[in-house]
Amino acid sequence: MIIIGERINGMFRDIAQAIKDRDPSAVHEWARKQEEAGAHYLDINVGPGSTEPVEAMKWLVENTQEVTDLPLCLDSTKYDAIEAGLQVCKKPAMINSVPAEMPKMERVFSMAAEHDAEVIGLAMNEEGIPKDSESRIALAMELVATADAFGVPTDSLYIDPLVLPCNVGQDHGPEVFETLRQVKMLSDPPPKTTVGLSNISQGVKNRELINRVFAVMAMANGLDSAIADACDDELMESVATARIILNMDIYCDSFVDVFRKSNR
Amino acid sequence: MIIIGERINGMFRDIAQAIKDRDPSAVHEWARKQEEAGAHYLDINVGPGSTEPVEAMKWLVENTQEVTDLPLCLDSTKYDAIEAGLQVCKKPAMINSVPAEMPKMERVFSMAAEHDAEVIGLAMNEEGIPKDSESRIALAMELVATADAFGVPTDSLYIDPLVLPCNVGQDHGPEVFETLRQVKMLSDPPPKTTVGLSNISQGVKNRELINRVFAVMAMANGLDSAIADACDDELMESVATARIILNMDIYCDSFVDVFRKSNR
Repeated sequence: MIIIGERINGMFRDIAQAIKDRDPSAVHEWARKQEEAGAHYLDINVGPGSTEPVEAMKWLVENTQEVTDLPLCLDSTKYDAIEAGLQVCKKPAMINSVPAEMPKMERVFSMAAEHDAEVIGLAMNEEGIPKDSESRIALAMELVATADAFGVPTDSLYIDPLVLPCNVGQDHGPEVFETLRQVKMLSDPPPKTTVGLSNISQGVKNRELINRVFAVMAMANGLDSAIADACDDELMESVATARIILNMDIYCDSFVDVFRKSNR
Repeated sequence: MIIIGERINGMFRDIAQAIKDRDPSAVHEWARKQEEAGAHYLDINVGPGSTEPVEAMKWLVENTQEVTDLPLCLDSTKYDAIEAGLQVCKKPAMINSVPAEMPKMERVFSMAAEHDAEVIGLAMNEEGIPKDSESRIALAMELVATADAFGVPTDSLYIDPLVLPCNVGQDHGPEVFETLRQVKMLSDPPPKTTVGLSNISQGVKNRELINRVFAVMAMANGLDSAIADACDDELMESVATARIILNMDIYCDSFVDVFRKSNR
């Protein structure tokens, strides 16, 4: 499974302060730490409170790239910020994210085609997040078709079925798993899949336990990637183990270490 | 998920000694410990070296029942021992196990019908364990049909797809998951499913990690029960979490404790 490290995000106080002061030390620290822990991509998010998201995104991308060669996942609802980030990315990036809403899909998929970027497509539209898997799949199909129309290869599209906290939308859990399975039948090659892992445990106890159990259950249903805490050792151990069980990596006694080094 | 506690087994030295000396203290201790930890059934196995399996099974059943009301799972390839055990069980028991081989199915399913017992049916026959899920399902179908012919209700039958150690039969993992899913489409009501959980990690490092990750991945594919170490706290936490994620138990902050007490 592809781990998109979640930590360079202005939602966290140290990153918000780093952006404000234009002091890259916290950004460098988290880029290095997440790479060392085994992240395959780094999510870059200026945070909800940014007053200058375009400049902040550019600065975050440039400063992250000073210490790592990992590809980046540009995370914003402000597409001008994403575009500014894409222009300074040294490697093809991922765009996080676009819902199944036409003007937004047009903007994002045309940017993606131009910059050879991957895209996370959300199974939601103007009406919100549907509960049942059938409706989520219908939205995924719109994303697949529109990506294709704009020249974005289907396997550069990551469908996010959208996970709700287990104390709020508990009945969504099985629907998310069913969506993950059915997405793989939409096309050949199929789109990839991703989730924002920590959503499942937002506001509940035992967060790490719930995150890692959900992650491997989703992998058993075909999940390809997750935006997650790469520095959560038990999560990374669980993901490495699930890859062994699914016969995706060959078993050896040090399979956990081998997985962590697979991003190199 | 139904946890069948694995510990009262003559394969363990303390239980073998207990049987030999007819000293029930270790049996009592493990019966109590496993019930306290949350086991729903207790597996009873006289061990591979027993010279008098019929008498030993009777003794183990009687002594286990002195301290617990949990139902028992009589585990032997010697059907005379199982029959002796069934005769002294106070509650309907589970028979562990029968392969898809005709004379054995006749013997076991007729015993089960007579004693109102559940049965674990193995997806194997004289030719061994098949690799692909299609062949496992064909054997499961034979078990379903034969159980029905002998008057054993389909939902009293637990299909065990048979798990191999991940360093030996790594390619069996995805086939086992596919079998678990397809078993649920065999009939209405479908048979239940079970696995011998510790088989996945036989002879490898990180046993507990592999066991608990496999368990919840299998639950995401419909696994109903497992013969497992009920005293492995992290396993039981993972199983309780998977039940929350699958919307099988209602979330509350103390969901792990609630699951442990669900056997009462």
